[in-house]
Amino acid sequence: MSTSALTRAKRAHNFNAGPAALPLPALERMREELLDYRGTGMSVMELSHRSAEFEAINNAAEQNLRKLLAIPEDYAVIFVQGGGSMQFTMVPMNLALAGKPVDVLHTGAWTAKAISELKKGTPHTIAASTESEKFVRVPRQDELKLSAAASYTYFCTNNTIEGTQYHELPKSAAPLVADMSSDICSRPVDVAKFGLIFAGAQKNLGPSGVTVVIVRKDLAERADKNLPTLLQYRTHIKEKSLYHTPPTFAVYTLGLVTEWIAAEGGLAGIQKRNEAKAKLLYDTIDGSGGYYKCPVEKASRSLMNVVFRVAGGEEAVEKEFGKQAGAAGLVGTPGHRSVGGMRISLYNAVGQDSVEALTGFMKEFQKARG
Amino acid sequence: MSTSALTRAKRAHNFNAGPAALPLPALERMREELLDYRGTGMSVMELSHRSAEFEAINNAAEQNLRKLLAIPEDYAVIFVQGGGSMQFTMVPMNLALAGKPVDVLHTGAWTAKAISELKKGTPHTIAASTESEKFVRVPRQDELKLSAAASYTYFCTNNTIEGTQYHELPKSAAPLVADMSSDICSRPVDVAKFGLIFAGAQKNLGPSGVTVVIVRKDLAERADKNLPTLLQYRTHIKEKSLYHTPPTFAVYTLGLVTEWIAAEGGLAGIQKRNEAKAKLLYDTIDGSGGYYKCPVEKASRSLMNVVFRVAGGEEAVEKEFGKQAGAAGLVGTPGHRSVGGMRISLYNAVGQDSVEALTGFMKEFQKARG
Repeated sequence: MSTSALTRAKRAHNFNAGPAALPLPALERMREELLDYRGTGMSVMELSHRSAEFEAINNAAEQNLRKLLAIPEDYAVIFVQGGGSMQFTMVPMNLALAGKPVDVLHTGAWTAKAISELKKGTPHTIAASTESEKFVRVPRQDELKLSAAASYTYFCTNNTIEGTQYHELPKSAAPLVADMSSDICSRPVDVAKFGLIFAGAQKNLGPSGVTVVIVRKDLAERADKNLPTLLQYRTHIKEKSLYHTPPTFAVYTLGLVTEWIAAEGGLAGIQKRNEAKAKLLYDTIDGSGGYYKCPVEKASRSLMNVVFRVAGGEEAVEKEFGKQAGAAGLVGTPGHRSVGGMRISLYNAVGQDSVEALTGFMKEFQKARG
Repeated sequence: MSTSALTRAKRAHNFNAGPAALPLPALERMREELLDYRGTGMSVMELSHRSAEFEAINNAAEQNLRKLLAIPEDYAVIFVQGGGSMQFTMVPMNLALAGKPVDVLHTGAWTAKAISELKKGTPHTIAASTESEKFVRVPRQDELKLSAAASYTYFCTNNTIEGTQYHELPKSAAPLVADMSSDICSRPVDVAKFGLIFAGAQKNLGPSGVTVVIVRKDLAERADKNLPTLLQYRTHIKEKSLYHTPPTFAVYTLGLVTEWIAAEGGLAGIQKRNEAKAKLLYDTIDGSGGYYKCPVEKASRSLMNVVFRVAGGEEAVEKEFGKQAGAAGLVGTPGHRSVGGMRISLYNAVGQDSVEALTGFMKEFQKARG
């Protein structure tokens, strides 16, 4: 076996919800360059963020994203810190207009967090919610009660905990603002339909510690210039994400991961892979005669986070499932502690082989206990 | 030669101001564990931040800091994102009390940035400033014009751009709040004398992307609970830095670097190393017959960032110095673009061998041109 094949054999099947699996070629490149980045005699972590080498890394990460997502010229792409949670504050701080509410489509735990921050002083309306149905689907267009003049319409494209995903974008006259943390770059998307997109990198794009914000430049000018410098999008736009010291290694990793996505056929290629992985898993669930059951309505099922119950949701059995799966090298199968059950995250870097290993295990588990 | 010795031979002499040199043993461990963290079959970057493995990494990083700095029990140690720049906003947001100004000791570019953020709505007074002397020293105790009832007294222990450092702590009745980004863990310090200490990790503690905050717990309770959740210290204290997804790899790296510091004899050992390095360099400057000149008053000279001019500050010669140094494998010698001259950063991970190589080069350079 080659070194690479040996390494692959030792790798866990990683279904973590984020931080999550990274592509092996990206990790191998990091390892190779860790002590000496391309002849500099330094690790990427030791480069000045003002050096030509890091500037090239920073630009490459941005350009890779621009190419993959075909981001129009009038949009800025910036890298910031603080994850999606920081964006729950930064988005209204920068984009909410006086007298114009924020419209929110409420679909679960992550939109709830965004709403909590809005409650601290930003007028907003819940334009749709599927809470009464336990969030087993995302709202349909005909259910949206949008304001006449909203600052923006906020939603979460993919809900990691509930296992739902929009397969058609909501339409609104106000700019769409999306938390795309868990499905960015997992499929093609028309960026021009959005006012702002944000995403923590730690699911489909790289490690935790760097957050991507794609924002229509004119919207970034809405913000009061008296806001904290670091919390204004315009600061990072103007300085090309180098206003202050960026998380250099995380940006570098994001560059390697987006390079890998491009090599895999870009977003069209990745989408095909992701659809095949999700199909295999949903088919296994649906074909189990009810032993495994996905509570999510078919039209809203997520290709990224597949949630299901085992044996009618019997807690002891589900615990055993997670335990035995772990022993078999299948990591991260238990669902979020707030909802229980199982959750399988199928982000870009999770291979078809991992899903095959999992579905094989599921059949064995059912046979032994069902 | 062993692999390690070979690697060392290829390493640059890294005098970057931050991000900066990291200890080779820490980098080697990262490389070794990059694809498989201790038998998990995953990189640290791929671990869930809720996993037992990452929890142990997070705890170790905190405990290492607690031990090195002998941090009292009534202080919290948290890891946040956003660097020192975020702290310029978070500190007043959390610690400023109504009707009680913030006292600031102004010593250069970094305190200027903190003041800019205070100007956005926090009452403050400049209790001391050495600006009229071009910041060639830090203020003496007898110069401080402290308010009768300040919220806190703010200062920067080491000024990277100006090359100054406090060798005696200022005294004030109000809690001391320090930006210790560039000299934390470079020498022992009595944490009990502070209300809050913050530091971006990227100089003495690790990579960029993680910021250490050490705060007396009762002070963290000053903050309005209606502030953005992520910008309240209490959120991170309560959740042990795991309220949201932390920059996992940066925290891991900080753990490895602090482990290395402990192995080098802790802060007393590191201080001795740092004093020897700085002495060699300052002696070379002072012994050059004026060819090299450090503008900083002796009592305020920084052990971390040594600034000096070459040939009376002739720009062309200084540019040539930086260029030739770079060609000789001495990286990062030019001073900050705002002040010119040269700046040599001697953070913990910079070895005596690097300073010897530099001072050797300085003598050669002077001989050839002086």
